[in-house]
Amino acid sequence: MARERPMRLLIHEKSYRRVEAAIAAHGPAVEPLLLSDTGEVTLNGLALSLEDARPEAAWANADVFFSGAMRPFASATLKSPDLKWVQSGAAGYDNAIFGQFVQKGATLTTSHGQAVGIADYVLWGVLDVYQGGPARRAAQAAHDWNRLPYRELEGSRWVVLGFGAIGQGVAVRARAFGAHVTGVRRSGGSDPAADRMVTPDRFLDVLADADVVALCAPATPETRRIANADAFARMKPGAVFVNVGRGALVDEPALLAGLAAGAPGHAVLDVFETEPQAADSPFWDHPQVTMTPHAAGMSSGNAPRNDALFLENLAHYLAGRPLENVADAKDVLGG
Amino acid sequence: MARERPMRLLIHEKSYRRVEAAIAAHGPAVEPLLLSDTGEVTLNGLALSLEDARPEAAWANADVFFSGAMRPFASATLKSPDLKWVQSGAAGYDNAIFGQFVQKGATLTTSHGQAVGIADYVLWGVLDVYQGGPARRAAQAAHDWNRLPYRELEGSRWVVLGFGAIGQGVAVRARAFGAHVTGVRRSGGSDPAADRMVTPDRFLDVLADADVVALCAPATPETRRIANADAFARMKPGAVFVNVGRGALVDEPALLAGLAAGAPGHAVLDVFETEPQAADSPFWDHPQVTMTPHAAGMSSGNAPRNDALFLENLAHYLAGRPLENVADAKDVLGG
Repeated sequence: MARERPMRLLIHEKSYRRVEAAIAAHGPAVEPLLLSDTGEVTLNGLALSLEDARPEAAWANADVFFSGAMRPFASATLKSPDLKWVQSGAAGYDNAIFGQFVQKGATLTTSHGQAVGIADYVLWGVLDVYQGGPARRAAQAAHDWNRLPYRELEGSRWVVLGFGAIGQGVAVRARAFGAHVTGVRRSGGSDPAADRMVTPDRFLDVLADADVVALCAPATPETRRIANADAFARMKPGAVFVNVGRGALVDEPALLAGLAAGAPGHAVLDVFETEPQAADSPFWDHPQVTMTPHAAGMSSGNAPRNDALFLENLAHYLAGRPLENVADAKDVLGG
Repeated sequence: MARERPMRLLIHEKSYRRVEAAIAAHGPAVEPLLLSDTGEVTLNGLALSLEDARPEAAWANADVFFSGAMRPFASATLKSPDLKWVQSGAAGYDNAIFGQFVQKGATLTTSHGQAVGIADYVLWGVLDVYQGGPARRAAQAAHDWNRLPYRELEGSRWVVLGFGAIGQGVAVRARAFGAHVTGVRRSGGSDPAADRMVTPDRFLDVLADADVVALCAPATPETRRIANADAFARMKPGAVFVNVGRGALVDEPALLAGLAAGAPGHAVLDVFETEPQAADSPFWDHPQVTMTPHAAGMSSGNAPRNDALFLENLAHYLAGRPLENVADAKDVLGG
């Protein structure tokens, strides 16, 4: 499809430096609107106001979200009468701006690039508990030649709530260690990455013989507080509980009570009801808690993976071909 | 094959309690010689001297090796004119007693049961470096909501020296994370668990682009000091070096110099030239070293796995069938 006029693309200048050559390969079809960390927009070196930027497409990635550029990015895109497509660097739609893009009629495309690193994180968290990492580190610090026993993963039973890219990544890794994986997802059915698949109404039933319970689902009305007192009461003593979904999935006071009762025996928590967690949160110093600050997805591999996806979709967009990973407007607005 | 007289089996009383029913199922064909932690041997409740024990078979497992029973176990077996078979709970032959069994003409059968846990250990050690475990734990201890980036395993290149049960277990797990694995073994060839297989003469060549180097080989004249100054000089800055083979494989002063120079960037060490390591070993407090006391194989899964193998071989032995995992006398005496 031949384009009548150049497409204005809003892109963080840091992102642009990585993909400049690939964009230049499209010739004059793309006019990059470069966004700085402090919110200036320039077109061919000339400053534009946020109103005058009028992007047709925009790339909402980590360079934007983790910088001072987020607010001006939101202004320029939401004020643009021409906005047609936004490529996100994330899988979810928690930020309200995604809903606003969709309400404006723009197409939102997402990225599952973070799933790779998040799956690594889950195995890191669980292995450290199984291998007895804290006791080993204490022995090393004490110069103590103490041959501590540990639990292997072979034969362990995992329940993975949410079987999208993250849940599947966790399952593939865990099964390479000889773990048995029960996936939980709305569509049920079967999946080559799982030994067993159940629907969410069976979640409480399958907890009873789980050694590891990993929440890898987004926050929805259905998953809200799914890990509650009832769930923890069904878990095996010593089970490892992992949350890389969202804080809203967990009843945190119930989790603390569960830890005190030994079920779960340990929690690996990357997400919380309140973020950042306050300095006096009981999780920081809890001996049964491995706590990270919503950082499970901070992998070095995301940027190259997201760059590649963006460039692929850019080529599709310019050629009038269907885009990869188009978000369902219903999910974005309902989530 | 019908047996003429009962077979006397030397077995630690703790081991016996786990497998008593399965042994009893063989009826009077097996006479258990129960060995206590303090070295008493009893037959049907009556005490025997170590000379009078005369076992035909013996089970040299963790209950024996990690207790005061090792020395009397050695006396009773080596003094027995009837010794025909010893089942070991280990894969290697480092302990001189294995050579003595073989020199007496007894059949030694080994166990690769520890490989499962050791492979878990390797992934634990590498993941903790890749995920930035130390910095995460420091941030948690400081109540610091600091979203630290990390490296994912996808696309990392591993060199695994020794491609027996442990090396294969490491490779299968690493590849589930998207790692590329080069195996190094004497027989070369190819292996479904490896992306590439080379012979040991290529070891130095393949180090140059390795992100992870894991030594999973026994100590032999060929592997002695294979990780020397030349090897560390070829490693990439920041590479992770793991030794779960034997301390003799590593030139430890060269390793310390390599760490100081940044290649490897981190070492995960379970075995050492001198064990136990002295309290003033430079490894204990080294910030680039994860150190464990020859404990990578201390998995909870070994006992049930070794029990099952012992019982399987016991049934084979009594029926006159070939045993599983018979050690090659040449390897035992040469290793």
